[in-house]
Amino acid sequence: MEATYQALRKHGYADLSISKIAEEFEKSKSLLYHHYDGKDDLLVAFLEYLIDQFAADITLDAWDDAEAQLRSFFDRLIPPALDDEQREFQTALLEIRAQAPHNEVYREQFTKTDRFIRETIEQYLESGIEQGTFREVDSEATAQLFLSMINGAILERVTADNPRAIKDLRSALNSYIEEYLAA
Amino acid sequence: MEATYQALRKHGYADLSISKIAEEFEKSKSLLYHHYDGKDDLLVAFLEYLIDQFAADITLDAWDDAEAQLRSFFDRLIPPALDDEQREFQTALLEIRAQAPHNEVYREQFTKTDRFIRETIEQYLESGIEQGTFREVDSEATAQLFLSMINGAILERVTADNPRAIKDLRSALNSYIEEYLAA
Repeated sequence: MEATYQALRKHGYADLSISKIAEEFEKSKSLLYHHYDGKDDLLVAFLEYLIDQFAADITLDAWDDAEAQLRSFFDRLIPPALDDEQREFQTALLEIRAQAPHNEVYREQFTKTDRFIRETIEQYLESGIEQGTFREVDSEATAQLFLSMINGAILERVTADNPRAIKDLRSALNSYIEEYLAA
Repeated sequence: MEATYQALRKHGYADLSISKIAEEFEKSKSLLYHHYDGKDDLLVAFLEYLIDQFAADITLDAWDDAEAQLRSFFDRLIPPALDDEQREFQTALLEIRAQAPHNEVYREQFTKTDRFIRETIEQYLESGIEQGTFREVDSEATAQLFLSMINGAILERVTADNPRAIKDLRSALNSYIEEYLAA
């Protein structure tokens, strides 16, 4: 998985091959060829691994401050700045996502990723409502708004040059939480 | 431009060539080869044409109901359903956008598209504030939130299978306008 990450980041999706992943792999290369049918097979396993890793990292504590958890989740997905490695990786992920309309197994993975993000936000919203810090909003619809905003920001960040985008988005999100969500 | 649209929709970005565009072109094919250096050159002209067409279609009447104009603009970008032709075209546009991280001229075009959408929304927000129907929100930051939400919804629509996404997003947007933006 680490070898796939490095190869993807360096070569992008279009130029990726299983042999380029093998170049990054320290263990037996035949093991890699034995386990995976080709780059798409390996990438599906990689996308699954990414979601699992991300999910394992996310805390969902119904007793903790829901607003703080929501803000920190957003910061993980939309950090104020990206270093070169993060930018290369986001770019490669977008290239894979652009294959999803024609590739059902990729589409399944991105459907899972989107569902995970949406459901996590939904749980933060419901905790906040329970805790009395958030108003009684429609948590499913509101979580979808957050998800699309996050996906859009990730897309814009690598495909357009608007130096103010992330700052403006964070400021709008602040107002949204403080003036709309807050109980 | 019509020939480019048809070829792009049918073949997608990766399989597109200037000869496939020429196949859709009723006039002299040599004219096409004479005017454009290759598929990328033609696609940049096509992206410029799309923005111009879209901009010409959008009404920005400071005297008209700003909320209605904002809703109708959103509906244009995120219609409740896509027919096959619209879906094919959105898919092809995403494939081009996924090239933008490595391709400066594409990135310039998507920067322009994003700017046009953001500035249009900003003007609707400012009209609404002027008309007294919207609260005095930070129109630049709020327009960025709308833009990312729109870009995310367009991306999700063709790359993930969530039949509720658009319905939920519209419902969240309704609440946002009625309970947050409304004066």
